[in-house]
Amino acid sequence: MAALPRLLIRGGRVVNEDRSQLADVLVEDGVVRALGPDLLASGTSTEGLRILDATGKLVLPGGIDTHTHLQFPFMGTQSIDDFYLGTKVKEEMKILTQNKGINSFKMFMAYKDLYMVRDEELYAAFSQCKEIGAIAQVHAENGDLIAEGAKKMLALGITGPEGHELCRPEAVEAEATLRAITIANAVNCPLYVVHVMSKSSAKIIADARREGKVVFGEPIAAGLGTDGTHYWNKEWHHAAHHVMGPPLRPDPSTPDFLMNLLANDDLTTTGTDHCTFNTCQKALGKDDFTKIPNGVNGVEDRMSIIWEKGVHSGKMDENRFVAVTSSNAAKIFNLYPRKGIIAIGSDADIVIWDPKATRTISAKTHHQAVNFNIFEGMVCHGVPLVTISRGKVVYEAGNFNVSAGDGKYIHRKPFAEYVYKRIKQRDQTCIPVPVERLPYKEEVILLKASGKKEASAPVTRKQAYH
Amino acid sequence: MAALPRLLIRGGRVVNEDRSQLADVLVEDGVVRALGPDLLASGTSTEGLRILDATGKLVLPGGIDTHTHLQFPFMGTQSIDDFYLGTKVKEEMKILTQNKGINSFKMFMAYKDLYMVRDEELYAAFSQCKEIGAIAQVHAENGDLIAEGAKKMLALGITGPEGHELCRPEAVEAEATLRAITIANAVNCPLYVVHVMSKSSAKIIADARREGKVVFGEPIAAGLGTDGTHYWNKEWHHAAHHVMGPPLRPDPSTPDFLMNLLANDDLTTTGTDHCTFNTCQKALGKDDFTKIPNGVNGVEDRMSIIWEKGVHSGKMDENRFVAVTSSNAAKIFNLYPRKGIIAIGSDADIVIWDPKATRTISAKTHHQAVNFNIFEGMVCHGVPLVTISRGKVVYEAGNFNVSAGDGKYIHRKPFAEYVYKRIKQRDQTCIPVPVERLPYKEEVILLKASGKKEASAPVTRKQAYH
Amino acid sequence: MAALPRLLIRGGRVVNEDRSQLADVLVEDGVVRALGPDLLASGTSTEGLRILDATGKLVLPGGIDTHTHLQFPFMGTQSIDDFYLGTKVKEEMKILTQNKGINSFKMFMAYKDLYMVRDEELYAAFSQCKEIGAIAQVHAENGDLIAEGAKKMLALGITGPEGHELCRPEAVEAEATLRAITIANAVNCPLYVVHVMSKSSAKIIADARREGKVVFGEPIAAGLGTDGTHYWNKEWHHAAHHVMGPPLRPDPSTPDFLMNLLANDDLTTTGTDHCTFNTCQKALGKDDFTKIPNGVNGVEDRMSIIWEKGVHSGKMDENRFVAVTSSNAAKIFNLYPRKGIIAIGSDADIVIWDPKATRTISAKTHHQAVNFNIFEGMVCHGVPLVTISRGKVVYEAGNFNVSAGDGKYIHRKPFAEYVYKRIKQRDQTCIPVPVERLPYKEEVILLKASGKKEASAPVTRKQAYH
Amino acid sequence: MAALPRLLIRGGRVVNEDRSQLADVLVEDGVVRALGPDLLASGTSTEGLRILDATGKLVLPGGIDTHTHLQFPFMGTQSIDDFYLGTKVKEEMKILTQNKGINSFKMFMAYKDLYMVRDEELYAAFSQCKEIGAIAQVHAENGDLIAEGAKKMLALGITGPEGHELCRPEAVEAEATLRAITIANAVNCPLYVVHVMSKSSAKIIADARREGKVVFGEPIAAGLGTDGTHYWNKEWHHAAHHVMGPPLRPDPSTPDFLMNLLANDDLTTTGTDHCTFNTCQKALGKDDFTKIPNGVNGVEDRMSIIWEKGVHSGKMDENRFVAVTSSNAAKIFNLYPRKGIIAIGSDADIVIWDPKATRTISAKTHHQAVNFNIFEGMVCHGVPLVTISRGKVVYEAGNFNVSAGDGKYIHRKPFAEYVYKRIKQRDQTCIPVPVERLPYKEEVILLKASGKKEASAPVTRKQAYH
Repeated sequence: MAALPRLLIRGGRVVNEDRSQLADVLVEDGVVRALGPDLLASGTSTEGLRILDATGKLVLPGGIDTHTHLQFPFMGTQSIDDFYLGTKVKEEMKILTQNKGINSFKMFMAYKDLYMVRDEELYAAFSQCKEIGAIAQVHAENGDLIAEGAKKMLALGITGPEGHELCRPEAVEAEATLRAITIANAVNCPLYVVHVMSKSSAKIIADARREGKVVFGEPIAAGLGTDGTHYWNKEWHHAAHHVMGPPLRPDPSTPDFLMNLLANDDLTTTGTDHCTFNTCQKALGKDDFTKIPNGVNGVEDRMSIIWEKGVHSGKMDENRFVAVTSSNAAKIFNLYPRKGIIAIGSDADIVIWDPKATRTISAKTHHQAVNFNIFEGMVCHGVPLVTISRGKVVYEAGNFNVSAGDGKYIHRKPFAEYVYKRIKQRDQTCIPVPVERLPYKEEVILLKASGKKEASAPVTRKQAYH
Repeated sequence: MAALPRLLIRGGRVVNEDRSQLADVLVEDGVVRALGPDLLASGTSTEGLRILDATGKLVLPGGIDTHTHLQFPFMGTQSIDDFYLGTKVKEEMKILTQNKGINSFKMFMAYKDLYMVRDEELYAAFSQCKEIGAIAQVHAENGDLIAEGAKKMLALGITGPEGHELCRPEAVEAEATLRAITIANAVNCPLYVVHVMSKSSAKIIADARREGKVVFGEPIAAGLGTDGTHYWNKEWHHAAHHVMGPPLRPDPSTPDFLMNLLANDDLTTTGTDHCTFNTCQKALGKDDFTKIPNGVNGVEDRMSIIWEKGVHSGKMDENRFVAVTSSNAAKIFNLYPRKGIIAIGSDADIVIWDPKATRTISAKTHHQAVNFNIFEGMVCHGVPLVTISRGKVVYEAGNFNVSAGDGKYIHRKPFAEYVYKRIKQRDQTCIPVPVERLPYKEEVILLKASGKKEASAPVTRKQAYH
Repeated sequence: MAALPRLLIRGGRVVNEDRSQLADVLVEDGVVRALGPDLLASGTSTEGLRILDATGKLVLPGGIDTHTHLQFPFMGTQSIDDFYLGTKVKEEMKILTQNKGINSFKMFMAYKDLYMVRDEELYAAFSQCKEIGAIAQVHAENGDLIAEGAKKMLALGITGPEGHELCRPEAVEAEATLRAITIANAVNCPLYVVHVMSKSSAKIIADARREGKVVFGEPIAAGLGTDGTHYWNKEWHHAAHHVMGPPLRPDPSTPDFLMNLLANDDLTTTGTDHCTFNTCQKALGKDDFTKIPNGVNGVEDRMSIIWEKGVHSGKMDENRFVAVTSSNAAKIFNLYPRKGIIAIGSDADIVIWDPKATRTISAKTHHQAVNFNIFEGMVCHGVPLVTISRGKVVYEAGNFNVSAGDGKYIHRKPFAEYVYKRIKQRDQTCIPVPVERLPYKEEVILLKASGKKEASAPVTRKQAYH
Repeated sequence: MAALPRLLIRGGRVVNEDRSQLADVLVEDGVVRALGPDLLASGTSTEGLRILDATGKLVLPGGIDTHTHLQFPFMGTQSIDDFYLGTKVKEEMKILTQNKGINSFKMFMAYKDLYMVRDEELYAAFSQCKEIGAIAQVHAENGDLIAEGAKKMLALGITGPEGHELCRPEAVEAEATLRAITIANAVNCPLYVVHVMSKSSAKIIADARREGKVVFGEPIAAGLGTDGTHYWNKEWHHAAHHVMGPPLRPDPSTPDFLMNLLANDDLTTTGTDHCTFNTCQKALGKDDFTKIPNGVNGVEDRMSIIWEKGVHSGKMDENRFVAVTSSNAAKIFNLYPRKGIIAIGSDADIVIWDPKATRTISAKTHHQAVNFNIFEGMVCHGVPLVTISRGKVVYEAGNFNVSAGDGKYIHRKPFAEYVYKRIKQRDQTCIPVPVERLPYKEEVILLKASGKKEASAPVTRKQAYH
């Protein structure tokens, strides 16, 4: 790769998680070298310097999509790769973490007879994740109930996409979410719940956090931007293009609810679960919804959807926007402060963002091969003007400049402090201890002599499982 | 059985679920023949009539213990027999219901490798219960987590009774409760949760009822009268005598919480799970809490505990007391109004109750073989003076008069209206129907011509799963 | 009044709160004289007997509308009269209760500068209600916030009916509901919340009941049958005809939510707050929503709405229907078992109900003077065929037969047991007592000698306010 | 003030809200000049440099006590001064904010006839706070109920300190908290609730945040470190020394609950409400608890209590500790990043903290004049070694070095972004608009011609009140 030009982003408002400030940003060799007001005046050399004007614009850390299925960084989006864990790989997990820099594993509670893991396997996998310091991720839906529900719907003659939602209603998601949290907590293992799609599931996560459990919930662009009434659309292809698992929810107040919890730190990060199929591909399930390929678009529109529904609506400020699109993911997956912040020494993953401009999302104009967009027609405030990935301008003025191989896999270390510091502390201080008891013989004598004895409080116990 | 004498219970306050009234009760041939003020004055023949004076006392329907392990009716307590369902017995279930009058089946989610049924088996069993109109009961605890937790506790050197609670904390009960409710609801099958022991589990049941689910929760005398701090008692035998599954909870506010929900109809009935062991029997688990036989006393003291903690405390009135100790169980198990009410034509299962007298519970004075009482020393208002079982005085002035064979098994019909009326109605009115869609070809054309179409509301869906 | 003919209702299914049974009902002199299968066969004289055939029909206790503004009994509906309490009437309250048979008083937390009472006045009124054994009712909305909100809306140029809802959103109702409950509980006074219109308010009541508070919530036909989206209707008159206080809620899931809680006994009774105005009257507020007369119809359709949305939907069974339309109100207002049940000796307030017939509600066919019906076009299962009020057939085959003076005011005694039994018990058993302390001098000495002392548990306190 | 020596804090782990890093900190002229590994090696001049060794220790931003009643900075604690608002001072509020740098005002809902403000006054004060960009603070307790409760307790002969809690139980706090939030939200004004003492009040705040309301809750050291069982202590002086308003709660699970919510960002900052009285002063209320001066200690022990109960227990990590003791307060009161972070350019308010050392809290050793400490005997991990206030070492090795006048009042600007950014955005985008309606005449015609019209959704409304 040829040397990149130096970049100076001038006059913008640099937005980090903790504050916003008017500052220039100097980028060299793919990292941020300086940050401050009017860097040219303070002696920055202009040699080989490309200046990007950001006056009146926001300068944001590049988004981190916690949950996508892409081979390359899209629009400067850094994606988190996880390893799907379908079988017992205890030894292999350790190797992947230590040698390959993979620090998260995803388990499926759905997809029976395919990926689904049972409770005792979850227990074992969570135990192993904790031992090696990885992030245990779950797709939380009750696979048994989905399988039975699908049979029931087909028997009722419901073969269309609405059957997809009808056989996996939100109770199926909520149940699995509570189960996963309960199992993870029994192991004192942190848990990351991918694609939180329903109010009831999000509420379970929020309640668990209130009780002190180390659990993170990730809503996705689709769930924050649209809803499941589309499954009842009269046009099959329209409905089918919304099919994903867990499904979008018919309750139209769901997106607002999820966004409120995201604003409030009850939910932590955002992903897309981006995985698109053309109408022709979707048509595989024309006569049986269980055969519709699961997946919706999202990666290109994630930032805009969250800005529109979160920031423009007044639910969160620009700093929280950075936290949920970038910083929190960087912390959880142990990339912070290399990623997730614009600070001296950080990777120059930067977006110049126009918060006042608007754009209309459409399949006609999007940069994806798929012929449908679930956000079709939505007018969003917040438009990316320039995207920089590790110091390289990869998007500018509507044009992409990405080559194969531009994506760089980042080794991620285990035991992210943001996730594991509390866990380790609890392991040291909250271990239950045996009650010291009188010898048995003496007891029998006491028993004869007296009645009830005073019980002592279980001082150590209650800490054991929190 | 020789003819029973006619009985006249005079001058008492007859308490039914819906009201109390001053009235005499005339009993003949084991059933209530008349009910009203001063029956002698209205011409009741005194021939062969035994008169029991109940002036200043309450006259209550005999208690129905929904959950005991007894061979005979104790103190006039009618117990509900259920059939434990460990394996697939689909056909057998139907036979038991139709021919043997068994209308409830109990499934275990705990006791792994012994009784524990998996989710798909629960689904099948609930489906079958619904088809035959039986009551599906569950023991709700996550068996996998208990098994793992027990290993962990023993590894920590915790071999005493406190380990019993530590390896099955209330989250283990709450998780299974939500799971059972979710599965039952997917089948639209009513559910009865036995021995609800924790605040979190009770809250899940109460929330489900608020959402319209047909679920009933049964707290037991032990959980309403004492708590799990006893597992930390310095004397092993004392702690061990409290071992049962699910365990009593260390949170001392649990009994009050459960009683409030029982008073409020969030919980419905009361049982005891009565199953007692002597200290010698309990000592089997001296060095390993997993070997302590599970079981506590309760049947003799159930009415007193609930009166003291429920009625005397002002949490419920005497009418609600009758509902939770008798009428509701009679309705659920389809014995009402033969049982559960003092009305003309009902079985004469009657208790004459002195609400002002007190007694002190003690192993020294109780009428059970076991040498320990978990309510030892508790002073209770509310003392039974006379107990009548199907017209026969079986307890009076401290003496029992029960013969082997006095208990009578009652055939119970399926499809109790109290339980199944709503269920049947939902099955008729809340079936989802397929969306009528345009032919596929036309869609493709439309797709080319236009953008997003309006989604229609899923009118039928939300009713499908309530 | 001339002697009424004897009536025999034959072959129907008599539905009471606790069960349903096939039985004939014999009515004489305005009360139920006999109840049982085939009364003619058991010797009932046919002299002067009018026989009403109820084969295949339900025979229900007449509805009790807890909340209407009518001068006469409508379709056999018994209405509960309460006394509006705007000022301190301590002495007068006692007189009204003792001499006039009024046992409920209603206080307004809304309608500032008109009826609104402040917290200290509520405290005093609740104290007085408790002392005389009356039911304290509240209209729960924060009057200050409504007044400010109305100013704000008018300043924004919002003069139409939507302003009515916008200036009193559900938070305004929920806040006042919690406040009223808190104040009532401080006095240990039972509380009855009229016209519960919102999910959040209903949830506060349900939560209070879970905590053991003696509080009853009354949803009304309008809130159970329609919603507040109508305030945004393009036609002014349509929107205006839905104006009432508290308003209907725009959240379309509100009616289902309220019905679930009514089915579940979190809410207890049903009323209508019936008070109708013609379009011409409503037009007083044409240019200012604050001048629109508040009131909607309901009394004629209450039973049908609750049957359709409650029973036909499968949310409640016919027995619960009787409880929420009749029995519970009779118990709370101390009319039970004279009213609220079909039993020997009860007043013959009876409806013969066809559960399978349907009718379409319309202003064109209703029996009210008003030219609008908020349930216009709704198809309801459940049609009254015959209505009997104290033994007189007042409605039959579509025709009314009511004369002025047919309504009879019923003296209601204070201290209804259903409401006050727990209250009295708590007053006896849950009084906090002073801590017995060491003399002060000794303390000072102890203070010097030692450090912290063990605190004892506040055993009596926690009961003081429950 | 003479020039301060330059300081180099070497080898410590610098802990900020977002991360921890091994770094030296260079302090000059009262601010942080440099931050990085081994600053001496990178050429820092040693002239006039005092080196403080922090190897193995944490270097934390100085705590900000949001709620104390002190005249001087104690142990480097920066306190937030607020202005108590008892009367209408609308104009004065603006002057104080613009000219005096006061950006927060505190309103009392308690202390009837003294400070208590009524709802309409709260509404006005919140409106004014919002207009001038100030933080509205409330002491949330229902003053009317407290006044009545106190009368009741004294009438019962309860004159001791337990009466203090009995007359203001947590429902009194929770009610006022919901009321304040409802009123603030009606104005779209941010709200800051001081000294959150109860589970129910904290839950109300957490729920409001979940719904997107801009509200902050502040628990205090006393509430996080001890509980209200002390009011039942047999020694009067012990009980009396715990008297404060709102009181500590008898429910012993309260501190854990509050700490969990603080860890989880449901609660935001921590204060002390420090205000101490000697036993002699407390004795004013010897015969009447209402005369006991309200106030407990806390400022000296705040950091240790939160470290012990929060960090050492594993409920929060060291970064969250910094957030709740310093950064969040700095953001809310608009002092960030001058305060609340150790960063280049920030004020050098720094604590060198030994997380492993322990100390025992005692009145015998504390640095306060008062002769009692409510945390007496508590062993805390986490000990401050050195405290630096604006570059001056004010505490070191157990000795204080503070002069009168060392405290510096900081002008705080209004409209803190952390608080007001969302508020402003909502004011721009969530204003309800009038429904455009058909002319009235046409309506009447339409009315005659047709039935019900379709209602349109209230799209703007739900945003109006969030």
